[in-house]
Amino acid sequence: MMFTKEEYLARLDKVKKSMEKKGIDVLLVTNPANICYTIGYDAWSFYVHQIVVIAQDEEMPYFIGRYMDAFAGVVKMTYLDEKHVYAYPDYYVQNPECHPMDFMSDVLKDLGYADKTIGVEMDSYYFTAMAFESLKKGLPDAKFVNGDLIVNWVKIIKSDAEIDLIRKAGKVVDNAMKIAADMVAPGVRQCDVGGAIMGAQMRGTDDISGDYCSIAPLTPYGKTAGAPHPTPDDQVYENGTTMFIEIAGIHKRYHCPMSRTFVIGKAEQKVYDAAQYTIEGLEAALATVKPGNLCEDVEAAWRETVKKYGIEKESRIGYSTGLNYPPDWGEHTASLRPGDKTVLQPNMVFHCIPGVYYPDFGISISQCFRVTENGCERMSSFPFELIQK
Amino acid sequence: MMFTKEEYLARLDKVKKSMEKKGIDVLLVTNPANICYTIGYDAWSFYVHQIVVIAQDEEMPYFIGRYMDAFAGVVKMTYLDEKHVYAYPDYYVQNPECHPMDFMSDVLKDLGYADKTIGVEMDSYYFTAMAFESLKKGLPDAKFVNGDLIVNWVKIIKSDAEIDLIRKAGKVVDNAMKIAADMVAPGVRQCDVGGAIMGAQMRGTDDISGDYCSIAPLTPYGKTAGAPHPTPDDQVYENGTTMFIEIAGIHKRYHCPMSRTFVIGKAEQKVYDAAQYTIEGLEAALATVKPGNLCEDVEAAWRETVKKYGIEKESRIGYSTGLNYPPDWGEHTASLRPGDKTVLQPNMVFHCIPGVYYPDFGISISQCFRVTENGCERMSSFPFELIQK
Repeated sequence: MMFTKEEYLARLDKVKKSMEKKGIDVLLVTNPANICYTIGYDAWSFYVHQIVVIAQDEEMPYFIGRYMDAFAGVVKMTYLDEKHVYAYPDYYVQNPECHPMDFMSDVLKDLGYADKTIGVEMDSYYFTAMAFESLKKGLPDAKFVNGDLIVNWVKIIKSDAEIDLIRKAGKVVDNAMKIAADMVAPGVRQCDVGGAIMGAQMRGTDDISGDYCSIAPLTPYGKTAGAPHPTPDDQVYENGTTMFIEIAGIHKRYHCPMSRTFVIGKAEQKVYDAAQYTIEGLEAALATVKPGNLCEDVEAAWRETVKKYGIEKESRIGYSTGLNYPPDWGEHTASLRPGDKTVLQPNMVFHCIPGVYYPDFGISISQCFRVTENGCERMSSFPFELIQK
Repeated sequence: MMFTKEEYLARLDKVKKSMEKKGIDVLLVTNPANICYTIGYDAWSFYVHQIVVIAQDEEMPYFIGRYMDAFAGVVKMTYLDEKHVYAYPDYYVQNPECHPMDFMSDVLKDLGYADKTIGVEMDSYYFTAMAFESLKKGLPDAKFVNGDLIVNWVKIIKSDAEIDLIRKAGKVVDNAMKIAADMVAPGVRQCDVGGAIMGAQMRGTDDISGDYCSIAPLTPYGKTAGAPHPTPDDQVYENGTTMFIEIAGIHKRYHCPMSRTFVIGKAEQKVYDAAQYTIEGLEAALATVKPGNLCEDVEAAWRETVKKYGIEKESRIGYSTGLNYPPDWGEHTASLRPGDKTVLQPNMVFHCIPGVYYPDFGISISQCFRVTENGCERMSSFPFELIQK
């Protein structure tokens, strides 16, 4: 197990307290990061329906999933015993005739939860509209309420053991970005650089194992250089171009994201200027990080600093991050943006990424940080700079 | 664009015919593979809500997504012009105060679709329960029906241009599996082999660009060797062990999956026997592939062949594959299993993976194939063998 059983029990206790405040008897956890967080199960089985059931009246959670994953996987990888694991037969998988949630409703009935108040993660990627319809049909006497982000808001404050994993992920991303920086050059294909990055992400370092990343390398270039989410293709880097690479280091599913901007050859002066303004704004934002300040304060520091240069950014400049699975390394809780009144507390971890996208290029230089007892710890050490190639 | 505009229009025509049969006026496409299939948009922006709107009364689809992705991304990467692209502001992103689907409902109203019959992809990963609730609230006069898999069932028969991409993906996976086979050895970390694989997947070959894979390398080993979905970690391969590696080659988002089983040092005789039976069953299954036969016929050929060895498999032995995004390379349409009456037709592509999982080891040797005019084309050429290291 990645953490002690005591740590898992402490997490469950916090989740149950939050459930109690919302009047929830039973929480159905579908987000794979939340499944991993609560029972320690880590495998790529989330492409089929699976849930963790956390109930006020039962100390241990239940897992309900596909037969091939349940006993040979969950029972062997987690603290759950066989009595707390239920498995649906394989004909429920991607079969228009029946849905895995039909099976799960029957299990929830057998467990005595048919008429309870049940929380569901309404906006979790893996809790589909069909899954909810099936549940409502299978448990007509239950009261369903939105339990979205309950686990995420517990998860936002990391334990020291979790911070240690993110620190290691920081070393993985420092190494991966250095490999990318060494490799980018005129004539090199994007996919060759992407491959070197993905290899370095999974490999890690000699001392620290890597892992697959929850987002593919983001490598806007050429005609889509102004959009943030294109991935590597067969374009060849050319002299006189600007681009950025956004990646993360990963260690045991914990992420430390990082973005850096590259100039190949010589760029127009506006590119160097925009990079300098971005770094100045990022430093101002990081200087604002300490317990008691609000998320919106960090954004305001950025905004106030760069507005003198005429920079206005439409989108948020950061978000909480940590344990995750595709398609996102963000935790969907606090964002660094106007109006977000979340109070910074020690061991929250954010990715601050004040990316500025122009029609023909983007500047993206970022930092993953931890809120400390009195300030800010940078979780990776790659310098803030425009990488000149 | 990956394909000609004519090919996209032909796809839309097939989708609209299928919509018509189901009485659907407007289809909301949320599955990123279906978005890419219908408009050619390829970027990692599916972690926020985005949809393609296909309407019977409008030749071109609409895209509604996040501002930063819409104009700098979709307009530049696809055949859609600015009039067919709508963007929501960034404060809709992961904000408990509002939901992107609220915005989308307003756009659908403006387009005149408030009282239409609207199809939604009910069991698509990225169509959450919350997204559906928001839509129903925003469009109270619309009639919502299940439009799940409409695009998937069109997509199941590939064009020759798509087959060419899968053939190239086959060369990428042949290369990646060879790299893995060369590297697995006692004392090597799983994550080092995983890194080499992921690097090779994204890099491709000198002539063929790779891409990120929709599933991380699956590398069951050690105490979870009997489960199919664990991913690489820091375990070190030891002499006298058996494991398998399931990966895909990818080219421009098209997948060619492959699984192979490895023995490090010497295994018990039962491992060699099980591998031999699996290969015999797989060959029998492939020999059954031709237009007119049913999906269940392919499974029956496997089952009849291996039952004399006492092998019974609980799960399906394959599924349709091709264009995809995380978390799955399967298309969720036809499966090779009892009861699946789908008639095989030319240019359908399947991954046949009759994995057999024992408590202490698993045998998984697979083949991605195309249905040809009169038989079966193997989309990769790595030999069927137990890889002895």
